[in-house]
Amino acid sequence: MKAEIISIGTELTAGHIVDTNAAYLSRRLALLGIEVDRRITISDNAAELVTELRKSLLRSNIVFTIGGLGPTVDDITLYAIGSAVSRALVHDSKLERSIGQYFKKKGLKKTPKDALRQVNVPRGSLWFENKVGTAPAIAVEHGGSLLIALPGPPRELIPLFENSIIPHLRKLGLAGGEIIKTRTIKVTGLVEAEVNRIVKDLFSTPPGTTVGIYVHLTEVHLKIAQKAASEKEADRKISKLEGHMTKRLGKHVYGTDDDSLESVVGSVLSKKRKTLAIAESCTGGLIASRITDINGSSGYFKMGVVAYSNAAKTKLLGVTPAHIRARGAVSKNVALEMARGAKRISGADVAIAVTGIAGPSGGTKERPVGLVFIALIINKREIVNKYLFTGSRVEIKQRTASAALDLLRLNL
Amino acid sequence: MKAEIISIGTELTAGHIVDTNAAYLSRRLALLGIEVDRRITISDNAAELVTELRKSLLRSNIVFTIGGLGPTVDDITLYAIGSAVSRALVHDSKLERSIGQYFKKKGLKKTPKDALRQVNVPRGSLWFENKVGTAPAIAVEHGGSLLIALPGPPRELIPLFENSIIPHLRKLGLAGGEIIKTRTIKVTGLVEAEVNRIVKDLFSTPPGTTVGIYVHLTEVHLKIAQKAASEKEADRKISKLEGHMTKRLGKHVYGTDDDSLESVVGSVLSKKRKTLAIAESCTGGLIASRITDINGSSGYFKMGVVAYSNAAKTKLLGVTPAHIRARGAVSKNVALEMARGAKRISGADVAIAVTGIAGPSGGTKERPVGLVFIALIINKREIVNKYLFTGSRVEIKQRTASAALDLLRLNL
Repeated sequence: MKAEIISIGTELTAGHIVDTNAAYLSRRLALLGIEVDRRITISDNAAELVTELRKSLLRSNIVFTIGGLGPTVDDITLYAIGSAVSRALVHDSKLERSIGQYFKKKGLKKTPKDALRQVNVPRGSLWFENKVGTAPAIAVEHGGSLLIALPGPPRELIPLFENSIIPHLRKLGLAGGEIIKTRTIKVTGLVEAEVNRIVKDLFSTPPGTTVGIYVHLTEVHLKIAQKAASEKEADRKISKLEGHMTKRLGKHVYGTDDDSLESVVGSVLSKKRKTLAIAESCTGGLIASRITDINGSSGYFKMGVVAYSNAAKTKLLGVTPAHIRARGAVSKNVALEMARGAKRISGADVAIAVTGIAGPSGGTKERPVGLVFIALIINKREIVNKYLFTGSRVEIKQRTASAALDLLRLNL
Repeated sequence: MKAEIISIGTELTAGHIVDTNAAYLSRRLALLGIEVDRRITISDNAAELVTELRKSLLRSNIVFTIGGLGPTVDDITLYAIGSAVSRALVHDSKLERSIGQYFKKKGLKKTPKDALRQVNVPRGSLWFENKVGTAPAIAVEHGGSLLIALPGPPRELIPLFENSIIPHLRKLGLAGGEIIKTRTIKVTGLVEAEVNRIVKDLFSTPPGTTVGIYVHLTEVHLKIAQKAASEKEADRKISKLEGHMTKRLGKHVYGTDDDSLESVVGSVLSKKRKTLAIAESCTGGLIASRITDINGSSGYFKMGVVAYSNAAKTKLLGVTPAHIRARGAVSKNVALEMARGAKRISGADVAIAVTGIAGPSGGTKERPVGLVFIALIINKREIVNKYLFTGSRVEIKQRTASAALDLLRLNL
């Protein structure tokens, strides 16, 4: 089963946005046994799109278009599809009601006039409701091939593909066959070269298995991709290789796939019925925000204090002013007293505190930008670590937040 | 001057990596007055590549290939180019010495055998030394068009393009001439269809100007791209159109280009010498984190409290327990009392507080997921607004944070 993807939009050809949709779609299709061997990116030019659609429909079993389904005059995809498959655009009253409902939920009494452009679809096509936007996905068959049009915003494209298009492909018997499954092993506390040294001999895998190494700001991800006849066989092979890698990397592996440091920490806190309080200076609320990204965090997260000023540190958290005067707000003592204060006020079992210099200004020779102290108190046990991070202000905030969450994970 | 880009690699068509090179190249070419109106992404298939190269060379003045120049058998680009432009690959002893030097610097005495595949280039082509890798960039002219092959890793492609290809394009008279400048007008508090209705007649711009509309989770961006003979002329034309748009969109325009709601709010607080305190429930620290992303925020941001539990709301911020019992923690009164508490404790001039239900669980019929109250106190003036947001947990957090920052912006 061969597919190709046509991404539409001058914002893509001009390089104003990076096309992450096409990569997502290619990966997901591979898992369904559908191989993408060609992608085309063109500007908002209807005549070009018609030409490309006709060629693609001759070449491939399935053709996906991404983008150009919105309500503006730039949005040419439906017209081009109608022209390429020789079908008139016809008004669909059920679709009009569906779009009307969407705006009603948004608090608008009437569907904006422009949005009404979106209720005309090629005759004989199917449409799939977009629950987070107005442009539906469209499917139309032509000359033995299937053409599927998806909206451009990833937050609309992904649920439409997952919840509507995959079932449709299965119903038509187009998905299945050999599949590719992937699993990502998530590593923290090591840099790429270290991870590489520890596991690189395991990259010479048997045919059908590939391993990729991907570097993120505070993590290294190892992605195992496995071709197999069935999900079960793929899972078995992946698990074997994952076992070898995890054994070597030890405590540095914090999870797989959709896990994040905050979700892993959250699960442990939930399971152990421990509550958490956070006192932040240089991260400015980022640790609390990551903790509360997790559904159910209200079960274990009691309170956060962003003590940005020295007054807030002393008044809210009870940090001794003499300690700030003596060694500055970025010091071991202050971190520890911030954590103690957060624990005391909140009554939480666990408290974490950070103080540091996020930069780019505010550094001195003795206390440079990137200097951070993280304190952790679990019941009566107290830990304080010193770090020196590099990068921009936002990167130092992120590195500090990840280090704090990882310290918490390793000591829970 | 028209160009197209062919990105080569099964890692791209399979979606294992996202093609950021093509977007980079498109943006840079636009600034040189070279317009990219088509990109193709194909797998490591030499026959396909030859076909595409021939078509592209007929269509465009310049054709760029990205990737497939490495030392492995997957790397088919030079063979395909040789075939497409009917030139034999010939050994280049200067290139061999250059690659040998690269490995010597890496501490290898001899060039690895695989790398020797890279020393054969199409007869009559130019090559440009790659200082951070082995694959050089190649330029070859054919039928009045120019073909340029670049290596795939961004850390090799970018310096090669900047330091070697741009001077080469200028030397050939292909770069320069007209330039393209862009400016993004950032709009908040309106949905795409509303923005479109208000300004769409301004999209019918004179030749040389294009306007794109880009939708983000909590903002709509209008991007003006202007072709002109000089930066000054481009700026003048852009400013004129920006003026018209800004006049119509009024207070909904909060800034341009690199501005963010938090940077704009920060500038005003700084200028007016006002200090800020924040009390957050459902956003869990996100507002404080966004405020502190801005360098210099320690000058105006005094303190944040993440009062996630009811106990934290009453104990830390002094919210009346009876108000929580009567109408729940997600209510007008509680939002207002949280803001009053934050202002009182911190002594700040301005306080903002949010309370709401981020979901996906925790909603009821009366108080559904997405219900949010935002309170703002500026000196003695008190405002409380009610909102109903849609989306995932993280999206509701983001929408709430943006609405809070915007409320602050509009009332400062």
